[in-house]
Amino acid sequence: MIDVALHPCQVSPLIPGLAEQVRAALAEDIGRGDLTTRLTVPPGRRAVARLLQKASGVLAGAPVFEAVFAVLAAEVAIAWLAEEGSAAAGPREVARLAGDAHALLAGERTALNYLQRLSGIATLAARAVAVARRYGVTILDTRKTTPGLRLLEKYATRVGGARNHRLGLDDGILIKDNHLLAAGGVMAAVRAARVGAPPGMLVEVEVTSEEQLAEAIAAGADLILLDNWPLATLPAAIARCRAAGIRTEVSGGITLETLEEVAATQPDFISLGALTHAAPALDFSLDFALETRSW
Amino acid sequence: MIDVALHPCQVSPLIPGLAEQVRAALAEDIGRGDLTTRLTVPPGRRAVARLLQKASGVLAGAPVFEAVFAVLAAEVAIAWLAEEGSAAAGPREVARLAGDAHALLAGERTALNYLQRLSGIATLAARAVAVARRYGVTILDTRKTTPGLRLLEKYATRVGGARNHRLGLDDGILIKDNHLLAAGGVMAAVRAARVGAPPGMLVEVEVTSEEQLAEAIAAGADLILLDNWPLATLPAAIARCRAAGIRTEVSGGITLETLEEVAATQPDFISLGALTHAAPALDFSLDFALETRSW
Amino acid sequence: MIDVALHPCQVSPLIPGLAEQVRAALAEDIGRGDLTTRLTVPPGRRAVARLLQKASGVLAGAPVFEAVFAVLAAEVAIAWLAEEGSAAAGPREVARLAGDAHALLAGERTALNYLQRLSGIATLAARAVAVARRYGVTILDTRKTTPGLRLLEKYATRVGGARNHRLGLDDGILIKDNHLLAAGGVMAAVRAARVGAPPGMLVEVEVTSEEQLAEAIAAGADLILLDNWPLATLPAAIARCRAAGIRTEVSGGITLETLEEVAATQPDFISLGALTHAAPALDFSLDFALETRSW
Amino acid sequence: MIDVALHPCQVSPLIPGLAEQVRAALAEDIGRGDLTTRLTVPPGRRAVARLLQKASGVLAGAPVFEAVFAVLAAEVAIAWLAEEGSAAAGPREVARLAGDAHALLAGERTALNYLQRLSGIATLAARAVAVARRYGVTILDTRKTTPGLRLLEKYATRVGGARNHRLGLDDGILIKDNHLLAAGGVMAAVRAARVGAPPGMLVEVEVTSEEQLAEAIAAGADLILLDNWPLATLPAAIARCRAAGIRTEVSGGITLETLEEVAATQPDFISLGALTHAAPALDFSLDFALETRSW
Amino acid sequence: MIDVALHPCQVSPLIPGLAEQVRAALAEDIGRGDLTTRLTVPPGRRAVARLLQKASGVLAGAPVFEAVFAVLAAEVAIAWLAEEGSAAAGPREVARLAGDAHALLAGERTALNYLQRLSGIATLAARAVAVARRYGVTILDTRKTTPGLRLLEKYATRVGGARNHRLGLDDGILIKDNHLLAAGGVMAAVRAARVGAPPGMLVEVEVTSEEQLAEAIAAGADLILLDNWPLATLPAAIARCRAAGIRTEVSGGITLETLEEVAATQPDFISLGALTHAAPALDFSLDFALETRSW
Amino acid sequence: MIDVALHPCQVSPLIPGLAEQVRAALAEDIGRGDLTTRLTVPPGRRAVARLLQKASGVLAGAPVFEAVFAVLAAEVAIAWLAEEGSAAAGPREVARLAGDAHALLAGERTALNYLQRLSGIATLAARAVAVARRYGVTILDTRKTTPGLRLLEKYATRVGGARNHRLGLDDGILIKDNHLLAAGGVMAAVRAARVGAPPGMLVEVEVTSEEQLAEAIAAGADLILLDNWPLATLPAAIARCRAAGIRTEVSGGITLETLEEVAATQPDFISLGALTHAAPALDFSLDFALETRSW
Repeated sequence: MIDVALHPCQVSPLIPGLAEQVRAALAEDIGRGDLTTRLTVPPGRRAVARLLQKASGVLAGAPVFEAVFAVLAAEVAIAWLAEEGSAAAGPREVARLAGDAHALLAGERTALNYLQRLSGIATLAARAVAVARRYGVTILDTRKTTPGLRLLEKYATRVGGARNHRLGLDDGILIKDNHLLAAGGVMAAVRAARVGAPPGMLVEVEVTSEEQLAEAIAAGADLILLDNWPLATLPAAIARCRAAGIRTEVSGGITLETLEEVAATQPDFISLGALTHAAPALDFSLDFALETRSW
Repeated sequence: MIDVALHPCQVSPLIPGLAEQVRAALAEDIGRGDLTTRLTVPPGRRAVARLLQKASGVLAGAPVFEAVFAVLAAEVAIAWLAEEGSAAAGPREVARLAGDAHALLAGERTALNYLQRLSGIATLAARAVAVARRYGVTILDTRKTTPGLRLLEKYATRVGGARNHRLGLDDGILIKDNHLLAAGGVMAAVRAARVGAPPGMLVEVEVTSEEQLAEAIAAGADLILLDNWPLATLPAAIARCRAAGIRTEVSGGITLETLEEVAATQPDFISLGALTHAAPALDFSLDFALETRSW
Repeated sequence: MIDVALHPCQVSPLIPGLAEQVRAALAEDIGRGDLTTRLTVPPGRRAVARLLQKASGVLAGAPVFEAVFAVLAAEVAIAWLAEEGSAAAGPREVARLAGDAHALLAGERTALNYLQRLSGIATLAARAVAVARRYGVTILDTRKTTPGLRLLEKYATRVGGARNHRLGLDDGILIKDNHLLAAGGVMAAVRAARVGAPPGMLVEVEVTSEEQLAEAIAAGADLILLDNWPLATLPAAIARCRAAGIRTEVSGGITLETLEEVAATQPDFISLGALTHAAPALDFSLDFALETRSW
Repeated sequence: MIDVALHPCQVSPLIPGLAEQVRAALAEDIGRGDLTTRLTVPPGRRAVARLLQKASGVLAGAPVFEAVFAVLAAEVAIAWLAEEGSAAAGPREVARLAGDAHALLAGERTALNYLQRLSGIATLAARAVAVARRYGVTILDTRKTTPGLRLLEKYATRVGGARNHRLGLDDGILIKDNHLLAAGGVMAAVRAARVGAPPGMLVEVEVTSEEQLAEAIAAGADLILLDNWPLATLPAAIARCRAAGIRTEVSGGITLETLEEVAATQPDFISLGALTHAAPALDFSLDFALETRSW
Repeated sequence: MIDVALHPCQVSPLIPGLAEQVRAALAEDIGRGDLTTRLTVPPGRRAVARLLQKASGVLAGAPVFEAVFAVLAAEVAIAWLAEEGSAAAGPREVARLAGDAHALLAGERTALNYLQRLSGIATLAARAVAVARRYGVTILDTRKTTPGLRLLEKYATRVGGARNHRLGLDDGILIKDNHLLAAGGVMAAVRAARVGAPPGMLVEVEVTSEEQLAEAIAAGADLILLDNWPLATLPAAIARCRAAGIRTEVSGGITLETLEEVAATQPDFISLGALTHAAPALDFSLDFALETRSW
Repeated sequence: MIDVALHPCQVSPLIPGLAEQVRAALAEDIGRGDLTTRLTVPPGRRAVARLLQKASGVLAGAPVFEAVFAVLAAEVAIAWLAEEGSAAAGPREVARLAGDAHALLAGERTALNYLQRLSGIATLAARAVAVARRYGVTILDTRKTTPGLRLLEKYATRVGGARNHRLGLDDGILIKDNHLLAAGGVMAAVRAARVGAPPGMLVEVEVTSEEQLAEAIAAGADLILLDNWPLATLPAAIARCRAAGIRTEVSGGITLETLEEVAATQPDFISLGALTHAAPALDFSLDFALETRSW
């Protein structure tokens, strides 16, 4: 449902740390003060503005955009004309704002920077999900995120329809190649992980050869990550896991272009680093209207 | 000069707030602890590793990569085999590391996430600079950066050869379209800015029409930003400014593909938001070697 | 192995946020300065001290104790005479310290406050584990911890031999009674959780009746928490879950006194809030020796 | 007076740093998000709940419990049915809440963890005060508190009727055994302290022998702490101090069981570390009711 | 216009970081709690108070004064009787307050400490501006501010009518004597600065001799700072710069007493460290009135 | 003893929070980077410098000056030629430094800003102490300090020979005029304070009339503050207190000029707000020498 009436901007309590995140971003941009605005716009001046999406894609980050103005503590009001997660085939008006001109000008760039990045990610995720869904495959994100934006970028992949893999090093067990070398092999690593794992957590292991795969199955891994396997070898490996009752994840430099052929091998999951490290921003702009207008 | 001997990782004092930045990024990824490593790798285990650049591009972010391990406070040592800012046409080994396996595993993803993003930006910047230089034009970055990474992303554009535009709202005066609407026009805004500007700061104004351009010149603007002007109109506008002794900046959705035709109009500066909002990550990996090896 | 030579105090990198945690605790105690010490002890005075455990129990928190003096940034050295996790039947000397008297006096109470609390928890955990182990049952801790000390208290239960349940609301799925009421029942809640759960995470549900138990099994729960079930009903419920291939956790006001009879019903896990909310401190003291002594 | 109408939760300004304290505790528990609630409870769902005290004891921490929900920034309302500091001989309903189900579920454990700990401390303090009062003796707390909770735990002892000793190393002068060793004796230490003490602060010294006691009296100590003196020696020592116009404090491993015999020697003060380091939590629970109910 | 009706205290969004700044100052003064008020004034007591300016001078810092009470989160209301920046020749009533007595007492000293310092600075600045204006010279402040108060002190100089020089090391280029020594001379330094300077920033250089002055002009400096030049040499130096189209700033131990003779040489700018490092506080007091009074 | 050899700069552990304090001050000045230095001085350039005191006064703040360079994390070394607290009748060389030129330039202003302010305060304090000492009167500071600098400014008054009054609202009880109005008079306030005061804290009350003085004596106040009493009335009031065994403090707009006549009335203490709110900075400069020099 679209929210057409202006309401005061708010900080959503559903995204942990949102106020602090946004406060730091504003401090980064504003620094010791918005000099241009202070010099050119009288205090107390009111303004209205339109938020425009300039290209085709999925809207993601509306709560973050809104939080920017809520944190600035000025009474900026907003009306959303498009829903979070909705896709548009071309340009559209996404929201209207009204409030103190100083606040709108000071928050504009920061709010847009969040929105363009999160919408870019959701747009790419939605494209990948549309492909994978045809093969019954679930798209996962990875930890290849921008430092400081992990939570928001993983929120954006969910908005785009993907499912989150673990959020950090503490909420999932994934034994990777470097762990195997340091631990002394698949068998030792998987067994050690099973002994100490919290009761609600599975043990996933990354394998890069047939030998490791056999060892992982024998060691009782709960999930197997087939990383960088040649396409031709995937069907057999996936079948072998499935026969052992083990779910599979496939990863390794997969792009939107190569996704379909990998999805056709029908693993349970495909994880895509590109969702967060190679998604171009989706363009938005905030345009002031004549002050006499009101909505 | 390449630094071939291993030295303890350090936090460069030349990037303000680097330790805090990196500490927050590590906390984001590690959360309550690196569970996989704790369960699978014995405390005290040592490891060595190679840092590989997987594709063609410019290395940027080496001091940030190094700071990650310095902040983890474990005695990780590093030897750089490639210089910050150097370009490679294909894959190469960039550095070698040795140290506590827990520290290497806990810092790996965070360190790579910084490096892949900053190198991606520097690579794109270098390409743009190579084009613009042929026309004597200086490439500038913008404030369209990832929230929280402004300083590092602007560092990366410098590594790639671009020049920084202002770093925030407080270290430069740029009167944009929304300011003009709120201020009541070009003349009023430029004059007000000149009165209060610090002695060392110029007044730049964005104009989108011939009328605004004329007004900006008359008002005594120091710099004029021609935003989203049709290509065909640029030469005359630039000439008009130059005749008045005013430098020009051109911007508006310029990509690597369209850069050359804009550069050929020879403004003083071209600013590219794409440098920071549309640069794909440059791929790097960290690969452990057998522990018996030493370097 | 016991570490008999004095070494400079250090902050272990294996406990995330340890330095910040300890810094805040010191600030809390020291406030605007250690007035008594400033007024009575000349700057630069050196001292040596013995750390004594005054009663029977398990040592836990040595790295935190040591970190306190490391963070004070004075050159305090320490030699541990007992190992982290070791139990003693009575009083013993646990460590020796030498260093600046101001640092020793300023850090003494904070360091002891950590040590007495964490050792108290490890001692209680070790007692519970000793009982449960005889029945093949694993002891888990809970989220009933002291605000601000979650990570350290859960570290202490591990030192005492227990296994960690989830560390927070984000690294495990446990659908409790209040969720069921808000979600509209067991079936709805379990199914919703399975759809969105990260690939490596199981779905646990708390049930308080035979009906809920049946529903949880039917819904495909991975783990079932039998909370506050009468002792007599546990064996049948556990058997029913086991027959369905589902592991069981039992909880609800269990104390060291009632633990054995619950353990005898042989669930997979028993979780004990008492480990962290009812463990009395284990007494330690730090006693200065004559300054002429050295070790 | 009991507050029966629901009012929006608030952060009391009378407890310094309460919002920050609670915010950190919530971050510790919620981490990157309340996963179970997000997956199982629809956004916007409302709930009502009862806060129940499960055992005999003193309620302490109501403002902290309330602050937890205020800080979550969701519109949770509360009505207190029992007053802060009131004692109950058995179970009782303490408060009613209504609000967003996500906020109630996300804050529940943190709010209860504070309440159970602070009420446990107040309950123990109230028992000690009841004994000591019969002999005209004032009960004091100590600095043996949980790191990070000093202020709240000392608040709880006051709620239980005890008086606070100093809150940290900066708001009182107490020369202890280790200071004496470092300072070169009672006479030197007391005199040095008197010279630099702020005008409103007394000088207290801990003595463990008759010789030290004599020296402390001669040096002009304002208060004398008799630490770990054999019970039989206390009356004479106290009398000696009283004759010199000096008030006395007694401490050293005193428990509820041994308190009465110490109180019978009638010092001015008895300080009890057990109030904060050995008080078991007082059990509370928060139970959702059917959503159709309203109050 | 004077604001005579009481309104709730607010934190101005126009001063970046004001809430955090004030929160830290309150924490510094209140520490673990306002002990005197807690012991002597019943919770909930209301009070009214007058804010009095005790001596001749300019009011500066009203938004900071107000923010102190807003941050204390108690419902304190205020009515301003004098405008920010207004000057009075003698004592006057500046504001009236009403609200919770605990909040008024806890915030009083902090609020006054800000007001007395900022008004002291504005008062001194206004005196300097009055002198310089007669010669068409603009008064600038410097970076000789109190650590932690840079932004507020520079705000106060603006309130007093001065113009800000750069706010920090990042928003202006000023090559000083020590840079020249490290850089190898005026020519090298100025040229290097011009190459990398952001497009909107000028290059200012400090010169202390005729030779340096000549070199600076030749190197194309945009602004020249004549630091500590003998008064008699200023007119010629200023004339020489003006002939080259370069603006001049004069500095070096100038006081209110010596300002006029320097101003008479008519540089473009005179910068005065004394504005912030030698301005005595302007005295204010906050006086409670009988509680029965209301306004 | 003067410390003539260069040693690496360090952060003194005796001033709580010094590193954080200095880090914030550096961030305030450096912001996003020291632009001038980056553009003009090559990385790695070394420099040596002299720290000069330019006028007569007491050196205070050497540990803070030194901490600035320690926190910048560059290897700057320092040799002190004058002792903290020493007075000089005129200009002198105070220290020598050597190290990375970037660090010296980035820290210079912040380090000097601390030193000039703290030395200014110590100088004024020393002058006041010299006067008061002749009458056996102790000089106290007040809470009229610069927000954020309380601890350092009170450190500086001690360096100058004054004694600290309370450091904040939590480490002393001082019932002032506004408390009396809110509490309902001297008798009620003093008695309430005595009941709840920590055992080591006295009760001081401010009185402004003979009636209040009589009431304070009768109520058992431990200390009496005679605020703004006419000079002629002081001797009798002080005598009356002394007869009751009560110590006296005198305050109220006392300056260096009026101090002697107040001291001649021989109260126990005189408190001077001017020490911290009206002390002009003491001038220092840091001058680079030719790089070829070494010491």
